[in-house]
Amino acid sequence: MQTISWNDAFVREEFAVLRRSRPFVYGLTNYVAASLSANVLLAVGAAPAIGAALDWPSCFAAGAGAVWINGAALICCRPETLRLAARSARDAHRPWVLDPVAFGAGSPVYDEALRALLEFGPAVIRGNASELISLAGGPGAGKGVDTAARSIDAVPYIRQLARDTGAVVAVSGDVDYVTNGDVVSRIEGGDVRLTRVTGAGCSLGAFIAALLAQSHSALNAACAAHAIFALAAQQAASVRGTGSFAVAFVDALSELESEWPGAAAGESLDA
Amino acid sequence: MQTISWNDAFVREEFAVLRRSRPFVYGLTNYVAASLSANVLLAVGAAPAIGAALDWPSCFAAGAGAVWINGAALICCRPETLRLAARSARDAHRPWVLDPVAFGAGSPVYDEALRALLEFGPAVIRGNASELISLAGGPGAGKGVDTAARSIDAVPYIRQLARDTGAVVAVSGDVDYVTNGDVVSRIEGGDVRLTRVTGAGCSLGAFIAALLAQSHSALNAACAAHAIFALAAQQAASVRGTGSFAVAFVDALSELESEWPGAAAGESLDA
Amino acid sequence: MQTISWNDAFVREEFAVLRRSRPFVYGLTNYVAASLSANVLLAVGAAPAIGAALDWPSCFAAGAGAVWINGAALICCRPETLRLAARSARDAHRPWVLDPVAFGAGSPVYDEALRALLEFGPAVIRGNASELISLAGGPGAGKGVDTAARSIDAVPYIRQLARDTGAVVAVSGDVDYVTNGDVVSRIEGGDVRLTRVTGAGCSLGAFIAALLAQSHSALNAACAAHAIFALAAQQAASVRGTGSFAVAFVDALSELESEWPGAAAGESLDA
Repeated sequence: MQTISWNDAFVREEFAVLRRSRPFVYGLTNYVAASLSANVLLAVGAAPAIGAALDWPSCFAAGAGAVWINGAALICCRPETLRLAARSARDAHRPWVLDPVAFGAGSPVYDEALRALLEFGPAVIRGNASELISLAGGPGAGKGVDTAARSIDAVPYIRQLARDTGAVVAVSGDVDYVTNGDVVSRIEGGDVRLTRVTGAGCSLGAFIAALLAQSHSALNAACAAHAIFALAAQQAASVRGTGSFAVAFVDALSELESEWPGAAAGESLDA
Repeated sequence: MQTISWNDAFVREEFAVLRRSRPFVYGLTNYVAASLSANVLLAVGAAPAIGAALDWPSCFAAGAGAVWINGAALICCRPETLRLAARSARDAHRPWVLDPVAFGAGSPVYDEALRALLEFGPAVIRGNASELISLAGGPGAGKGVDTAARSIDAVPYIRQLARDTGAVVAVSGDVDYVTNGDVVSRIEGGDVRLTRVTGAGCSLGAFIAALLAQSHSALNAACAAHAIFALAAQQAASVRGTGSFAVAFVDALSELESEWPGAAAGESLDA
Repeated sequence: MQTISWNDAFVREEFAVLRRSRPFVYGLTNYVAASLSANVLLAVGAAPAIGAALDWPSCFAAGAGAVWINGAALICCRPETLRLAARSARDAHRPWVLDPVAFGAGSPVYDEALRALLEFGPAVIRGNASELISLAGGPGAGKGVDTAARSIDAVPYIRQLARDTGAVVAVSGDVDYVTNGDVVSRIEGGDVRLTRVTGAGCSLGAFIAALLAQSHSALNAACAAHAIFALAAQQAASVRGTGSFAVAFVDALSELESEWPGAAAGESLDA
């Protein structure tokens, strides 16, 4: 199993392309995570729009470089709206990310609405272990939006889910794993405080979409997103307290440059 | 009238139990306060879920350790949704907190929708002086979501409201007062800047719910929540500016340990 | 063309009146920007309420000192709700601010709903160059909520828009311009990072409303709001990272006093 980090040239290259291209990224997410997700996207240089105002779900999903759909957007809009955005993205050949927040946590009608979105072919599915084990049909019951399982335990499930859906699937945890159903990559680092900042995981889904907007590879985009989040969390790690950590994490993303610490001297970004 | 603070062993014990048990707490709140409320709950170790996605109001209200309902959730969902969550909590014997934001501020239809929630027996009602005086039938007209009265003036009203409803009632202000209709406790400290951070009061409602999830006493949980908020505000008091204060306040909650400053040396947490 | 800044006595006077009067300001905005907008208003001393709970749009729009309507509020409520708030404000002679977020960015049904609000006579219209060029009938296509044009290019369009609507119109950019259709004022300063903090522009709309609540002149209020935002951004400029910048910006607004740096010694506020 390959370990991916900021030291990998393709990670820095994905980030450099994002910084240069400043893609328009459209998201349907929940209002708890919306502000942090937008600030993360603005920090890395993307141009986000969020929410389902009138004809935005069709117009913006088709017009954006990529789209993310966070299941907990259902606290703000109806299943039909999520379906319209997912269908519009697919029909316009825009890649989109599904984040099945709280899947399997005890609300079957909600779960069914999220599962039905798989029909529209997400390029990437990301979540925590409980959510993804449940989505893959395993016993993953979480506690609300939190996980009750370890990410390593989710690996066989995310491989199966990737094969079944054709999506790249990524699970967040103490170690993150990303798979296309065949190879599995691992990303270390991060900071446990990311789980104590509301919307951090949701923001990762948004960030994957920003990278997808320009990437040739959903696997590369998903791996790069996780590696960059891990690096930013490490950069933020010296502060105390979860409030300061959230601020420092956004700072790190906004200050990150593709030729920045961790890049081996003289190494080509195209290597 | 008894003064309660972090120096009281039961306050630290309530907090220690919360830290250990990490309860799932479900809330219906408004999108202005949702992010801070979630971050406050994550800071103290609870696992929050917020919002009314499809069957969440029935499933999560019954499945959580406790529930909070902020009246201004009506900017995101319908009265029926709040009623369903309150009824589901009551039927599953989950304690719930009512926060009647902006009650009596000049919108009678809104006020009536909040009053009708009393039918479902909240364990705790918390608000500012204008809101609670109005809810108790007095002349409390506020200015939007802000109070136009002092907390001390609300004391007779909250005692009556507690007797009428069977709830513990708590009023926030320069001094906070908490009553079960019989005894009235007071909590000093805090920081006026808490009134200049949006959602700080709403977050207190969420925090009370987190303590209620494990507490044997709604009175103890409500007193402890106010005393811990006051301590965290004091810890944050050295920074300048309301933006930094909000960050430092969350930091203080996240770093607080039950054996921390203020606890008399050698004193048992079970004393 | 006159350059306006904190050095102008009328700017400090507008701010001093706001600090003293603490107006109740009511807003319909989107949930991405709502929290920052509320924190900006609390920082400067206003008392905000946000959102469309039941009868709030009619009661609060008529009862507040001023109102702001952010077009992206349509991610939370229906066009009829925005119209009701705008009509209630007009009928009660309350000045209101229109912020046509993402106008012209590719969603025609949304655009039409915003344009229809002009019927209710906003006192001020504020936005970025793409939005205002489009609203004035020019070719302003933006990228989601971001602009694709420079503010200077919008000047002829905002003059025409001001003449057509009777509103003061203000465009934000590297330099801001404010006009009543006749004179055009410019405001320099600010910080490009304001465009990388979600909701900063939306918060400016809210802040204009807070000044409008007490001002004798919509032109003065709009100019003062831009000049004060520029000053606060300069005060915040020494920090690194967009997360810290957002915090420092709110801090600067909360610490700003009308007799503060920039005011020439001995100059009268009434000069």
